[in-house]
Amino acid sequence: MRARRLEFWFEYASTYSHIAAYRIERLARADGIEIDWKPFLLGPIFAAQGWNDSPFNIYPAKGRYMWRDMERLAAKYEIEFHRPSIFPQNGLLAARVTIAAEHERWLLDFVRAVYHANFAQDRDISKAETIEEILRALGTDPAAILERAVSVENKAKLREQSERAATRGIFGAPAFFAGDEMFWGSDRLEDAIAWLKRSQS
Amino acid sequence: MRARRLEFWFEYASTYSHIAAYRIERLARADGIEIDWKPFLLGPIFAAQGWNDSPFNIYPAKGRYMWRDMERLAAKYEIEFHRPSIFPQNGLLAARVTIAAEHERWLLDFVRAVYHANFAQDRDISKAETIEEILRALGTDPAAILERAVSVENKAKLREQSERAATRGIFGAPAFFAGDEMFWGSDRLEDAIAWLKRSQS
Repeated sequence: MRARRLEFWFEYASTYSHIAAYRIERLARADGIEIDWKPFLLGPIFAAQGWNDSPFNIYPAKGRYMWRDMERLAAKYEIEFHRPSIFPQNGLLAARVTIAAEHERWLLDFVRAVYHANFAQDRDISKAETIEEILRALGTDPAAILERAVSVENKAKLREQSERAATRGIFGAPAFFAGDEMFWGSDRLEDAIAWLKRSQS
Repeated sequence: MRARRLEFWFEYASTYSHIAAYRIERLARADGIEIDWKPFLLGPIFAAQGWNDSPFNIYPAKGRYMWRDMERLAAKYEIEFHRPSIFPQNGLLAARVTIAAEHERWLLDFVRAVYHANFAQDRDISKAETIEEILRALGTDPAAILERAVSVENKAKLREQSERAATRGIFGAPAFFAGDEMFWGSDRLEDAIAWLKRSQS
């Protein structure tokens, strides 16, 4: 039997993607589910909705609530959290590295380390130095990976994946797909897993 | 000891308020919590955010997802659901009746009946006839209640409650308050109850 696969569509700037990135592996593993990690860029999708910034900045009441919600969720799920001084951060390079590293053993550790840098350590993840340091700490060869990450082919892959996000109906992050069924938001992770188990049993 | 009280801020046009209205009593009763029913109008709050319609209509991808999410949530929580032909409906009169009936035994039944009319029976809840029929079916005196509902004092009460929603930071519905702590969305109902229990124990 083929393994059940859950697609996890995430954006490095996204606070709720951050929470989901910490929760998903624990939950999926308990159910024998494999995760397809799908980084994408939310910027073009927001721009198509008429937003040139995060809705949490455009709508201040929503933003104030979100930061409070983050504190509570981080406590609930025991995730280290410190409100970053830059929001949203530019996750382009980190997303390119993620695409380039999709078959690497350390992929999950990289994803978590980038979120930790952004939402716990208040480091600037848009900088090549930050990503390099993260890659080095994982015992990889940062120069080789960064070269692959910014290759024409790899850049195109991320662009195509971001376009695919829009055509599949994604309007925010994170999103999960169980087959063709979309679930939006970290809060729907359990429902997405339950759907996958039902639909393939 | 005073009873623990959870404030439930809801709008009759709101799909997720509808789900929460069915879930809240079951959950709160299990924990010995009393509910303060706080109907309010989301229209002015959305208008202040620059929206003259529901965001689910303004942003089509978000809207398509929401309706699908409604079908799934209704199945999950065993709530009858039929996508209404009018969305969002005008819940002004229903909200006025709710304010006028805040001390009535049948308040909860009225709230549920209005949501059922909107999101299961596809009836027009903006019409006085619909509200009258609902009140009659509950064994009340519709004429007396409607007269109270549209009195100058009662209209002012709803207006003040809606203004209070905005000043307390509400930007969408439903919202729950456990003391000063706000939780947004039907998905946060369990967390709101847990917060209330912790903070008053």
